[in-house]
Amino acid sequence: MKIGIIGGGSIGLLLAHYLTEHHEVRVYVRSKKQMDKMAAEGLFFEKKKKLINETINVSLFSSWSAEEELIIVAVKQYQLPSVLEKFRESNRLKNCTLLFLQNGMGHLKLLNELNAKTIAVGTTEHGANKIKDNHVIHTGDGLINLSVYRGNNVSELAELLAMPIRNFPFKFQEDWNEMLLQKLIVNAVINPLTAVLNVKNGMLLKNTHFNYLFKEYFKELSTILNISNKEKTFRHLEDICRKTSENRSSMLKDLDEHRPTEIDAILGFVLEMAKEKQLDAPFSENYYHLIKGKEYEGGKN
Amino acid sequence: MKIGIIGGGSIGLLLAHYLTEHHEVRVYVRSKKQMDKMAAEGLFFEKKKKLINETINVSLFSSWSAEEELIIVAVKQYQLPSVLEKFRESNRLKNCTLLFLQNGMGHLKLLNELNAKTIAVGTTEHGANKIKDNHVIHTGDGLINLSVYRGNNVSELAELLAMPIRNFPFKFQEDWNEMLLQKLIVNAVINPLTAVLNVKNGMLLKNTHFNYLFKEYFKELSTILNISNKEKTFRHLEDICRKTSENRSSMLKDLDEHRPTEIDAILGFVLEMAKEKQLDAPFSENYYHLIKGKEYEGGKN
Repeated sequence: MKIGIIGGGSIGLLLAHYLTEHHEVRVYVRSKKQMDKMAAEGLFFEKKKKLINETINVSLFSSWSAEEELIIVAVKQYQLPSVLEKFRESNRLKNCTLLFLQNGMGHLKLLNELNAKTIAVGTTEHGANKIKDNHVIHTGDGLINLSVYRGNNVSELAELLAMPIRNFPFKFQEDWNEMLLQKLIVNAVINPLTAVLNVKNGMLLKNTHFNYLFKEYFKELSTILNISNKEKTFRHLEDICRKTSENRSSMLKDLDEHRPTEIDAILGFVLEMAKEKQLDAPFSENYYHLIKGKEYEGGKN
Repeated sequence: MKIGIIGGGSIGLLLAHYLTEHHEVRVYVRSKKQMDKMAAEGLFFEKKKKLINETINVSLFSSWSAEEELIIVAVKQYQLPSVLEKFRESNRLKNCTLLFLQNGMGHLKLLNELNAKTIAVGTTEHGANKIKDNHVIHTGDGLINLSVYRGNNVSELAELLAMPIRNFPFKFQEDWNEMLLQKLIVNAVINPLTAVLNVKNGMLLKNTHFNYLFKEYFKELSTILNISNKEKTFRHLEDICRKTSENRSSMLKDLDEHRPTEIDAILGFVLEMAKEKQLDAPFSENYYHLIKGKEYEGGKN
């Protein structure tokens, strides 16, 4: 089928590489510089020291016109508003299935006004690192979870799930809320802690004091987010720290490179929930402002 | 009068330089290396690019025998136990006036069993930087507050106060509890925040997000420590941040140089108070463990 990928970041480029195997793919990017580079040189995909150079269809997002049956939105949450604006202007959106891969849950309310056929949401568990505008490294095998958020015509999602790609599995999840919550709590604990402390993920388990905070902070978050199976979720969280122990989290990398972080999508949402439920959130509040302050410092350099 | 200064750190060396003007001073140090260097080369005292080299009497603390009328203890709080052990062994301590210059308030309970004539406590507001074992720089003019903790024979303190030294004032405070609390709250806010964030003191006022935490954290501390005039204390705290805006706090420097910090003397004490009063202390707990964890990381390098 025809698939449009919106976003030329690490996940967008990863999707472009893998989905090309079975589908007709086009990547939509924001910058002319990136489009020109990809058009001229193709995409460089690297995994375990093996480098593949391939041709990928690429266009500017400003020229997008909803021609694809499935549209995967792989931009950061804070870039979503401009994408949604263009979606709303399109009179062909009702024929499309949209799949949103953002972190957090704050964006869900923005999706309600879209008149697409089906709206799906997903979470990615891949490790990927974009080192140039047209060069992505697949650093960690994972999967993409997806779930239907609205609509019941799921033929495009069914097709995606029915045509497995080696080393790039999709997994269907019945409960979108549970799926996003699980990812949110992982992001909300690991990202801010590692970013404030400037440590690799594994240190949250190894350092006694950091581990104490890790546990206390999880307690606060799981209460605010009303996680049903706290023990299981906590084991999942520990497991991810262990598997990614040598990684620097995405938020830490964002701060390192003076980019905006996803703190609003992650802890901003948690703080809204806490306010709504009138719950105390001292840890969340603390880490929210520590990261916002660090973002602000970084932006000045 | 005869004054013994215990501790060859930055404050100990600063005291040695200034008190020599009117008194017979001897510095007691722990390391033979430092003693030998000071005995051979003298003390280098530097202020505003002016360097003074002078002879200072120096001995090993292990040879100390309570010969001085006034003994000023200028070691870190975590080094106090070994000093107190030697004090307890001395049968001449009852003739001495002791002045303790430690941060925090956790050490007060340790002082109760000493049978000295008078026990005074003090807080220092000087900026000083020891760059070699026998070289100290006076980086910021300040004063030493002192107050009587126990005993009423204050002749030695009166003599100290009666003989003013240029650029090195002593100030008498009626209420030792109030005096130590004021210093504790300044240390408890500025030190952990700047050390976790790796920023200069002034950034706690300039960065909106850090400033928000600065205020919230002060609220928690002033409740736990039962500060009487919260507004005045807060203005004092802001004032110190402003005056020292270009400084890196002592705790930040300790972490930078992989030394132990004074976190137990400062926030350890606050957490004990909170527990005693059954008060929530999420910020204090959080910063306590962030610093302890960072100390642990640093210690491994």
